[in-house]
Amino acid sequence: MAIEGVDPQRIGRELGGAAVTVDPALPEPVRAGIGELVRRPLGPGAEPRIHVGPTLPELGPGERLLWMHSTNAGVDTLLAASAGWPTGTLLTRTVGRMGERIGQYVLAWALAELQNIPAFLDQHVSRTWNRLPTELADGTLAVVLGTGGIGAGIAAALRPSGVRTVGAARTARPVPDFDEVFALGAPDGSGAPSPELAAALGAARWVIDALPLTPATAGLLGSGFFGAMDGATFLNVGRGATVRTEALGRALEEGRVAHAVLDVLPEEPVGPGSPAWELPRTTLTSHSAGPTTAADVLTDFRAAWHALDAGRLPDLAVHLARGY
Amino acid sequence: MAIEGVDPQRIGRELGGAAVTVDPALPEPVRAGIGELVRRPLGPGAEPRIHVGPTLPELGPGERLLWMHSTNAGVDTLLAASAGWPTGTLLTRTVGRMGERIGQYVLAWALAELQNIPAFLDQHVSRTWNRLPTELADGTLAVVLGTGGIGAGIAAALRPSGVRTVGAARTARPVPDFDEVFALGAPDGSGAPSPELAAALGAARWVIDALPLTPATAGLLGSGFFGAMDGATFLNVGRGATVRTEALGRALEEGRVAHAVLDVLPEEPVGPGSPAWELPRTTLTSHSAGPTTAADVLTDFRAAWHALDAGRLPDLAVHLARGY
Repeated sequence: MAIEGVDPQRIGRELGGAAVTVDPALPEPVRAGIGELVRRPLGPGAEPRIHVGPTLPELGPGERLLWMHSTNAGVDTLLAASAGWPTGTLLTRTVGRMGERIGQYVLAWALAELQNIPAFLDQHVSRTWNRLPTELADGTLAVVLGTGGIGAGIAAALRPSGVRTVGAARTARPVPDFDEVFALGAPDGSGAPSPELAAALGAARWVIDALPLTPATAGLLGSGFFGAMDGATFLNVGRGATVRTEALGRALEEGRVAHAVLDVLPEEPVGPGSPAWELPRTTLTSHSAGPTTAADVLTDFRAAWHALDAGRLPDLAVHLARGY
Repeated sequence: MAIEGVDPQRIGRELGGAAVTVDPALPEPVRAGIGELVRRPLGPGAEPRIHVGPTLPELGPGERLLWMHSTNAGVDTLLAASAGWPTGTLLTRTVGRMGERIGQYVLAWALAELQNIPAFLDQHVSRTWNRLPTELADGTLAVVLGTGGIGAGIAAALRPSGVRTVGAARTARPVPDFDEVFALGAPDGSGAPSPELAAALGAARWVIDALPLTPATAGLLGSGFFGAMDGATFLNVGRGATVRTEALGRALEEGRVAHAVLDVLPEEPVGPGSPAWELPRTTLTSHSAGPTTAADVLTDFRAAWHALDAGRLPDLAVHLARGY
């Protein structure tokens, strides 16, 4: 799929003469690894420019940004910048082992619930020796909203424990690691889940939000989605603003959502006075599920560099209209 | 391997005329399922007798116990009965899905540590939004003491998350689900780990005790085993009395054991005044890791019945000299 205004062959031809800058806050191994790959002193100067970092660089007069490699997986903040994304500039992102990392996070919290870990920790504090029930994950159903690298990593992590996996994406289609993939939204564009997805949400023990934040997903998870659930545990490892927190709160009160584990919230950091701490049967985990390491940034930048050098669009190129 | 004094072909011939009794404390579905399988009214009367339950039945004068099926996996208490095990009586045990259940318990507690779940639960209570480190299980080493159904279930549960698995058994030999299996004890019989196992214990992130309690394993895990560890997390899902708790306490104080999760203790139940609660960085889980369900008892009794009916020794027959 091509990206409007971005010509990978042209960018490939310009790689050799470009200045390469790296955000000064990034760790030294990232700077060193990038310097070794691009074989030139890092720093602004020549025109055009390539930048690696979490935010857009300040450009000098006449400077042109050829390509920015984001050190994060979520690029919604970059794309929402007030000036708009610069026309013709390629944006790539770092996913790294995030699918695997977030997959283990989801598996850990699901098994912690089945094994009653929070209750055992409480019992230990009160020196209570009572047998508590534990459950096998085998045969439970997980619905994963989003079937990209992160959604697939979640499905791959859950499956070996016997969990059935249903994915939800823009369109129904086969995706590896998922037993089935249904369309996310109803065809009428009402913002409700598709009928197939609504049925799966009703049968799910686990519903995992791994959606990027785009105009199509902002506030998508409201009463329509939560109203279709029937006792699921809801985990959000995507973006906080895909969820209407007050609708989640009502679903928790009504028992439609049994427990919630929220790694992300619409506004972060979450201050001690935030009502999010008062959601019943909920744990907040402070946006820790998918850390990006120096190795992740280097691996993904290197793959993008080699793709462009060969005139191809990198796999992790952001499609601006789609938002990821 | 034959069992002294137990002839499966003779027992098979006697199945048809035997009385079958079921411990009155077992749930109705177990009684019903057994009644359906053996096609006779349950209860004492005819001689010889078959019994299903957790403890030896009281026998009437002249009654002979042909076969007892234990509803538990651990049979150390049965074999330690003061009168000794009745000569010629077959003992089978229930393992059920215990390997799978205990495997998920171990995976859950290992991932909970890597994902910092106890610290996130604490942060939630104090409304603290701080990013905490999380780690992938990938590449960590687990040493599993015991390579029977439970040890293999643990290895099978850990492997899909990228954990390397070393088993320890009476003798080194290949066992499915383990990368390698070393001899448990040193050849000199000193009670120390074998040199190969000691090296693995020193490199292990996880050491899991899945040993049965036998004369050879009672108190086996003392300063020799714990002294070989270097920062491992120790989980006991086997039998409490395989561990010298004071040696474990010293290893925790010295940091040779980083954390401990103990499902079993030498004396159970553990009262509120027990020093076990004071072990540092330790959680007790009240003998909850491997519950046996009615379905497990029925499945394993049925398999043993069919094996005997065909004149074969059941897979879950207890070898008295070995103790499991």
